Amino acid sequence: MAKPTAAAWMARALELARRGLYTTAPNPRVGCVLVKNHRLVGEGWHERAGEPHAEVHALRMAGDAARRATAYVTLEPCSHQGRTGPCAVALIEAGVKKVVMAMTDPNPQVAGRGIAMMREAGVEVEVGLLEEEARALNPGFISRMTRHRPFVRLKMAMSLDGRTAMESGESQWITGPHAREDVQRLRARSSVILTGVDSVIFDNSRLTVRATRLGVDNAEAIATRQPLRVVVDTQLRLPLAAACLREPGRTLVVTVPGHDPHRRTRLEEAGAEVLVVPAGEHGRVELHALLRYLAEQELANEVLLETGATLAGAMLDAELVDEMQLFVAPTLLGGEARPLFALPGLTRMAQQRPLEILDIRAVGRDWRITARPERRQE
Amino acid sequence: MAKPTAAAWMARALELARRGLYTTAPNPRVGCVLVKNHRLVGEGWHERAGEPHAEVHALRMAGDAARRATAYVTLEPCSHQGRTGPCAVALIEAGVKKVVMAMTDPNPQVAGRGIAMMREAGVEVEVGLLEEEARALNPGFISRMTRHRPFVRLKMAMSLDGRTAMESGESQWITGPHAREDVQRLRARSSVILTGVDSVIFDNSRLTVRATRLGVDNAEAIATRQPLRVVVDTQLRLPLAAACLREPGRTLVVTVPGHDPHRRTRLEEAGAEVLVVPAGEHGRVELHALLRYLAEQELANEVLLETGATLAGAMLDAELVDEMQLFVAPTLLGGEARPLFALPGLTRMAQQRPLEILDIRAVGRDWRITARPERRQE
Repeated sequence: MAKPTAAAWMARALELARRGLYTTAPNPRVGCVLVKNHRLVGEGWHERAGEPHAEVHALRMAGDAARRATAYVTLEPCSHQGRTGPCAVALIEAGVKKVVMAMTDPNPQVAGRGIAMMREAGVEVEVGLLEEEARALNPGFISRMTRHRPFVRLKMAMSLDGRTAMESGESQWITGPHAREDVQRLRARSSVILTGVDSVIFDNSRLTVRATRLGVDNAEAIATRQPLRVVVDTQLRLPLAAACLREPGRTLVVTVPGHDPHRRTRLEEAGAEVLVVPAGEHGRVELHALLRYLAEQELANEVLLETGATLAGAMLDAELVDEMQLFVAPTLLGGEARPLFALPGLTRMAQQRPLEILDIRAVGRDWRITARPERRQE
Repeated sequence: MAKPTAAAWMARALELARRGLYTTAPNPRVGCVLVKNHRLVGEGWHERAGEPHAEVHALRMAGDAARRATAYVTLEPCSHQGRTGPCAVALIEAGVKKVVMAMTDPNPQVAGRGIAMMREAGVEVEVGLLEEEARALNPGFISRMTRHRPFVRLKMAMSLDGRTAMESGESQWITGPHAREDVQRLRARSSVILTGVDSVIFDNSRLTVRATRLGVDNAEAIATRQPLRVVVDTQLRLPLAAACLREPGRTLVVTVPGHDPHRRTRLEEAGAEVLVVPAGEHGRVELHALLRYLAEQELANEVLLETGATLAGAMLDAELVDEMQLFVAPTLLGGEARPLFALPGLTRMAQQRPLEILDIRAVGRDWRITARPERRQE
């Protein structure tokens, strides 16, 4: 039998890392495999902040077999004194011969430190194996570390003619149960669900992860921690009876200076937290400031934007949408129905917003399109 | 080597039939294979009305070898005295032992006659092998024979947010060159290109098949015969200088009783033919009557509908769209841009128009979605 290649071992480490998809935030998803004489002697993955890192799990499983082994790890081992000690030190002390990592730490303040510590201790280090795959696992963590804002994923459910709701706001349900289950998983991997107050008013959505609709093994454990619900609400119009205020987890209502203090108190009494950010154009919430707050104060890695045409268009205009997940239902709602994006000022073909389509696949009777906005050339 | 199955021979006959895709109208596309002792002894396909049928070509190629052979033919051999005599008689006279056909003649007035003639003459007959594939080759011919109207294929080019043009009407080009080449092939297989006068006014499209942009072998021959251009124009607003009036082939302007006779004369002088059909709702052209005319008087099998939201919506509302070919460009045009369909009166989710998506595939940078409107349940 052919011996597994280095890439195959790294692929295994990536697969382990993926098990933390719904639970590691605000930490990154990381996997580690220890290999000696072409045989796996230890493996592990990071499950949850406060619990051991992937390398620690793998070293514990390997025991003495870790000596002279090669470690495959999806991210540079940490060099800082966390709750479980620096992993770089743990690998050195275990006598690991070589460490192959997919990518360096995206935090520019610590990148390369783990590598330097290990090299100084005589450990051989290689960097960059399956780097693209490793980066794709942690778009939010990388974005927070390098851009000081979360990775924003816009989810929309639309008809084939690009409509998200009837003119009245009626929209339940455009897409089928499989697509809605997919949305549950998108919520579960996110630190924040971001929406506009009008969407909450129309749909009275709970904006929560429901364990019964996740379709994954550890659904109950995942649903114990709800993403932060963030409602952009300049004029504090959120109904006090909104369903999302009665759900487990936090609801953050975002407004601007000059809001009604009485209304704020009522909302806080109803269970909301209220955040005041600077006002931008037309007195609206300054979205860059909001996202910076979410990254820096809430340690949000991935944000799921679930909203209507106005906020979706404003986020797109501000170039704050990193990825779009469009669920397209095989139906037509007609020209009077609500559009996908309000993009005021877009009147000429030369101003169109090009996208890169990354994937199209069937989800039940619907289709899911993954696209990425291209940077504007104007 | 395994002997080819009956299905393999029929597949070959279907492949031959497909060669007539752009040229047989108003006749159906038909292919024929003659097989003896598991070997092909003759094959043929129908190329053009007035020229021999597929069976005649295959019999000529086989010569004496046709005796005791099995014929695989994609459509029931004809029983009427056409320009080349009834094919059923030709097969009988050539001494063919057995005829396997994919489907019977869709014309209810002659269906089964060819079969009866051959059976009476002692020829063994089998029906239904790869019938679905055979039917898919001739949707227009079948529709004309059974429903007395052509098969209508709606083509639209849209942005991912379901927009066909800017508010100003500017639309060149939403999709890329590969998609536009695909549209050329859709035109070339059609008997009629149907559009509304507003589309002609906005785009001044020539509505022709251009040989250089077809991307098929016999492009020059195909482009010598242009599809009939049909412009729905209730008030005879077609500009006398419209590009389509100066192209080879015919342009039929469709209006209602009570139109301006002076304007009609001017249009006829400019090269248009004018057809008057009854007025339907709101004094507009009655679309069912128009399609019946196209089938019965123009012998139109396939109609390509290339138009804007109003006529597309009206055709959809009249349940006259059989298939949709949506070319989706990876771009956003925003909520002010022109919609795909005007569907007045569609205000509740319960009234939505469900579609069946048959195919999604990449065409250059764009995507082509093939869908079929489901019959309404209201």
